[in-house]
Amino acid sequence: MRLLIIGGVAAGLSAAARARRLDPSLEIVVLEKGADISYSACGLPYYLEGRAAAGQLVTYTADYFRKERNVAIRTGAKVVSIVHPRREVALEGGERVHYDKLVIATGARPDIRQIPGSTLPHVFTLHTLDDARRLKRFLSEKRPRRAVVAGGGYIGLEAADALRRNGLTVTVLEQGPHVLGRDDAWLTGFVRRHLERFRVEVRCGVRAPSVGETEVAGVPCDLAVLAPGLLPGTELAAEAGVQLGPSGAIRVDDRMMTNLGAVFAAGDCAETTHLVTGRPAYIPLGTTANKMGRVAGANAAGGRERFPGVVGTSIVKLFGIGIAQTGLSELQARREGFSPATARIESYSHPRYLGGRATTVELVADRNSGRLLGGLVIGEEGAAGRINVIAAALHARMSAADFEQMDLAYTPPYAPVWDPLLICAQQLRKAL
Amino acid sequence: MRLLIIGGVAAGLSAAARARRLDPSLEIVVLEKGADISYSACGLPYYLEGRAAAGQLVTYTADYFRKERNVAIRTGAKVVSIVHPRREVALEGGERVHYDKLVIATGARPDIRQIPGSTLPHVFTLHTLDDARRLKRFLSEKRPRRAVVAGGGYIGLEAADALRRNGLTVTVLEQGPHVLGRDDAWLTGFVRRHLERFRVEVRCGVRAPSVGETEVAGVPCDLAVLAPGLLPGTELAAEAGVQLGPSGAIRVDDRMMTNLGAVFAAGDCAETTHLVTGRPAYIPLGTTANKMGRVAGANAAGGRERFPGVVGTSIVKLFGIGIAQTGLSELQARREGFSPATARIESYSHPRYLGGRATTVELVADRNSGRLLGGLVIGEEGAAGRINVIAAALHARMSAADFEQMDLAYTPPYAPVWDPLLICAQQLRKAL
Repeated sequence: MRLLIIGGVAAGLSAAARARRLDPSLEIVVLEKGADISYSACGLPYYLEGRAAAGQLVTYTADYFRKERNVAIRTGAKVVSIVHPRREVALEGGERVHYDKLVIATGARPDIRQIPGSTLPHVFTLHTLDDARRLKRFLSEKRPRRAVVAGGGYIGLEAADALRRNGLTVTVLEQGPHVLGRDDAWLTGFVRRHLERFRVEVRCGVRAPSVGETEVAGVPCDLAVLAPGLLPGTELAAEAGVQLGPSGAIRVDDRMMTNLGAVFAAGDCAETTHLVTGRPAYIPLGTTANKMGRVAGANAAGGRERFPGVVGTSIVKLFGIGIAQTGLSELQARREGFSPATARIESYSHPRYLGGRATTVELVADRNSGRLLGGLVIGEEGAAGRINVIAAALHARMSAADFEQMDLAYTPPYAPVWDPLLICAQQLRKAL
Repeated sequence: MRLLIIGGVAAGLSAAARARRLDPSLEIVVLEKGADISYSACGLPYYLEGRAAAGQLVTYTADYFRKERNVAIRTGAKVVSIVHPRREVALEGGERVHYDKLVIATGARPDIRQIPGSTLPHVFTLHTLDDARRLKRFLSEKRPRRAVVAGGGYIGLEAADALRRNGLTVTVLEQGPHVLGRDDAWLTGFVRRHLERFRVEVRCGVRAPSVGETEVAGVPCDLAVLAPGLLPGTELAAEAGVQLGPSGAIRVDDRMMTNLGAVFAAGDCAETTHLVTGRPAYIPLGTTANKMGRVAGANAAGGRERFPGVVGTSIVKLFGIGIAQTGLSELQARREGFSPATARIESYSHPRYLGGRATTVELVADRNSGRLLGGLVIGEEGAAGRINVIAAALHARMSAADFEQMDLAYTPPYAPVWDPLLICAQQLRKAL
């Protein structure tokens, strides 16, 4: 009985590890088209910045998986087709590999289809470890001074931070009206002002830039980093008859099963359920990929596990400030048919006499049901912890009124007696 | 229409502020027996340590309340009896003050009844701002070198930390088998080892120490700080016919009403509901006092607000490490009739390549229902945020299985891809 896994980064290797734990006798083979496995894609900006070595981003080696987990990992193994009726995949070069169970963890790639000039030698993406290595080599060999980052999502802004810290002047060009994938004008304004303090300019509404030899959309540069949205890697799956969902990513149920028997999908190639809206969503993130992979691996090995979905939690650190979000923004909530009310407050992470830092909290709730729908936390300290409290409340479908009553930890070195979350919830009550 | 409030610290002033907001025309009078109002009792250790000035612990002055909130505050006004049939209180000196509505916020005091020698000049408590001022003066004038702290709860251990940082050698003597008010042998061992690294000795099971001129329980000292459990200030209330609950503190409903019409109670003098056990509990903490006060004030002013109760969340910082708990320990859960399973894991606050710190998480759940019952988080970074996530889950009566699926924030500067909370929840599943 062979479990074949296409993809050896987050979801693929989580699937392999979990399947092995449930079934010690299963044959497990992982095919990874690249040279690297099991690296933290989210750590790439810190490698670029110079705070982490490439080796530190690699959690496990192929050798570790072979020896300790009895999982065969083949790197440089590019699958060109899945022939499901014969339960086999074809590799570049013609080799065929049989499977009994298949996990598709083909990830995603930056969607640079619309960007002319993307193959010029001073143009990079920051998606794989190899991308980051090449960009880092370019920085040290060519000493570029002016960078344009095309894309104002997480990766683009983290890249901007890392490049600025390498001494480059940086301009971020975002096609849409908002940054960080949240339809939130206030947040976009905050990010723009914050980055400007570190002399990174952010311009929104810059239509589909083409990259020239010395400029992007009129902004002179000798380095361009393309950080557009991600495109789920669905080609192999779709050609094999795997259904895609409304987001364009692979449709899976809560056991990570596709429409084809014995074929699972997990990670950035697949969509999941947004637990606030109850609808399919494509939010490719490392944590979700690992969770989906674990469940896919468990079920492929005969287990019965579920991954119900996400609430859209994420965080980014930009020039010392944590910017975290979960659930829906007011605009997103309205678009989903809710009747949202929003409160936003400024407070402190803990008492100022012990060095408390400015903290912003925004909460969104539905006027009809009173249910909490989303939140935003921004601050130098405690943003991750506080957004996770809101995330827990979203998972529990908690009302704003119940949220306001929560028994949160207080001691002056860590929190004020009225936590910013509770202050915001009190304001939210007035808005509901 | 006069609202009279006995007590001008956390609960009393929260009640005054909230009542004023709901009813601009209400006459509000606060009687505080001490000289200080509105100070952060939880900040006293930091004043003692020397990191905060006394003035920084005071949130609002009596003048502020008079001018900005139209609340009359009388300090040095000690109530000696409540004569409810006549709707009046008697002050020391004979004056009588009428009320229409009454909020009893008489707080608590360290229970030093069982400690002979407590009135010696080198013996202190750390309960009021005045206590802290006197202790600080003693430190600077007498230069004591060896301190004994009697009591291994929050206040005792925070006092030990502050005294040690002032250069004293410190021994903590605790009567019971465990520290920090949690029946948890592992935690007690952890705290003892952690404090020993900073040369603070912790001895448990030291029976009711009497304080001598030069020693406590055989430990030589020239300073003793008594930090026994708190005794709710119920005398005035009880003599007036206000019922006490099973904990010995004032019984209130979820609107903070006592058994007497028009008489409310809030803060450290009153008990509340433990939402995990569903039973009355006496857990005097500043956050709870403020919340109870707010609700008492609202309802005394004609509003209709509720305070459902607490889940027992608290945190203390000891020599750089945050130690946080919520809900029930395994032992407490068993005593409450649950069939608890426990998992405890060691992990990191965030990836080590960005400086992640050791983090311990313990989760307790009920084998019969699968419901999460409590948790513990210890670490240099992120303990407050993580304990609050567990607290939110307890409020929502979340199952351990659902907890494991939560969509928590991930980015390398703040969290690992598998948050310690989720790693622990995975282990807990195996134990259930």
